[in-house]
Amino acid sequence: MKKQQDPMVVLERTLAEAVNRAKDPGCPPTFTEALDYAIFPGGHRIRPRLCLAVAAACGNDQPMLASASAAAIEMLHCASLIHDDLPCFDDADIRRGKPSVHKAYGEQIAVLAGDALIVMSFELIARHGAVIPERLAPLIDIVGSSVSVPRGIVAGQAWESESKLDLANYQQEKTGSLFAAATMAGASASGYVGKEWQILGLGIGEAYQVADDIRDVVSTEEEIGKPVGQDDAHGRPSVARALGLEGAVDRLEALVTEAVESIPACPGRDMLHGMMIKESQRFLPKKLRRAA
Amino acid sequence: MKKQQDPMVVLERTLAEAVNRAKDPGCPPTFTEALDYAIFPGGHRIRPRLCLAVAAACGNDQPMLASASAAAIEMLHCASLIHDDLPCFDDADIRRGKPSVHKAYGEQIAVLAGDALIVMSFELIARHGAVIPERLAPLIDIVGSSVSVPRGIVAGQAWESESKLDLANYQQEKTGSLFAAATMAGASASGYVGKEWQILGLGIGEAYQVADDIRDVVSTEEEIGKPVGQDDAHGRPSVARALGLEGAVDRLEALVTEAVESIPACPGRDMLHGMMIKESQRFLPKKLRRAA
Repeated sequence: MKKQQDPMVVLERTLAEAVNRAKDPGCPPTFTEALDYAIFPGGHRIRPRLCLAVAAACGNDQPMLASASAAAIEMLHCASLIHDDLPCFDDADIRRGKPSVHKAYGEQIAVLAGDALIVMSFELIARHGAVIPERLAPLIDIVGSSVSVPRGIVAGQAWESESKLDLANYQQEKTGSLFAAATMAGASASGYVGKEWQILGLGIGEAYQVADDIRDVVSTEEEIGKPVGQDDAHGRPSVARALGLEGAVDRLEALVTEAVESIPACPGRDMLHGMMIKESQRFLPKKLRRAA
Repeated sequence: MKKQQDPMVVLERTLAEAVNRAKDPGCPPTFTEALDYAIFPGGHRIRPRLCLAVAAACGNDQPMLASASAAAIEMLHCASLIHDDLPCFDDADIRRGKPSVHKAYGEQIAVLAGDALIVMSFELIARHGAVIPERLAPLIDIVGSSVSVPRGIVAGQAWESESKLDLANYQQEKTGSLFAAATMAGASASGYVGKEWQILGLGIGEAYQVADDIRDVVSTEEEIGKPVGQDDAHGRPSVARALGLEGAVDRLEALVTEAVESIPACPGRDMLHGMMIKESQRFLPKKLRRAA
């Protein structure tokens, strides 16, 4: 029997495959280095982990396409962090416990690194989708629309430039959309109908957003690798402030419980159900985790 | 007989189809407006025109896929102009005879508009490639690699951040790569082998670069819709300065003559050959054009 490879190890290798394409004399060496810096070492890789868990539950008959989709989603997430950290947006100095890309390499390289990662994510999916081309268009549609207009990450970020912010759209577009892409792409890469997995992703994304509000209140900068107290400092709405810490953890659990009920029929439904309940506790700081 | 539609009219409609996806209450209205502003009215649409001419020469059996590919290339070109014009790069106030996107809408919107257009270009190709999925992966590879690493537009632009500029790679990556994508995508969308059309695109791209050097010397800002004398001001190498105006026009003609000799066998080879010779004269200011 062929030994099953750890999908998270395959994911890191797939990310490296994408980034290593920049290792070529035609590519400016500082830029090659900056791309590597932006992707490695990773954060918790929560979105690709979610994508691969759904793919596994769906039988994962095209593991490299699932890994490419998961890696693409992570690269798009990294691209959005790089551009969000730019001086014209959050002007953030620290990300994942080290200088942000523009602090380390300058603003030009940061703009271009984000651009390149966006393109590379679609190239990666296309390379691994060539063997099963009928899955390619739906996958690109899922992944593309989660970061694009009218309701993807860039649309969400662009709400910050409006005089009147549409808060519900803003939060779903900035966070929920890529989580939904993760579940939908994991299913779609495995031959399932992506759309049916959207509610799960949106719910997990909303739970993650609650956890993010909580961490912003109770964590230290060392623990989460970026400054804390930002919601308060920027007057941003926060579930943790509105409901208190225990109330916010209750809210997170309710969101996850509701989300996992939506998991469509698939071979690994029970496994995925249990895993989501357990994994979502990991969103929280250790001191607030409850036994699943 | 079905009346043949003007492919450039179809192109504008395809671009509008892509941009109109932002017209949704979920999308911040200023951002929707900025995307429209960035794409319309267009410049000469030289790259999509080239793409559609090659598709026509190859029999154009999938006209909507060809139009989507041409539109995607134009959107990527517009995205690169928006980001190149940012304060951290050229800090350009004027583009296509009107304020650049960041001057009109601010830096945040400009960064995000470039990002969105990159994603939208791949979504557009995927939507129209769904009917003939086996052409999708090669097309995304062609279009993606022309703007990505190691040898696409972003790599070319990133050479500007190196202490030692690799001039040959820089120019081919910044200009040639997208022209090559235009010819290769036009062929690939029509079922031909894209790679065989690369030399044509690179040659036309190099000729265009020569014409750009010429225009920078002899045109007025009104004529070309952006400031002139920039090569001199920034100490950039210029064929027009190195060879003189007549010498530069000779060089342009030699490049085009060599490029069109490379056109692979296809139903419209002669038509395309003549058209390229004629169209390339249009790269030049009127006073320097010679009879083809």
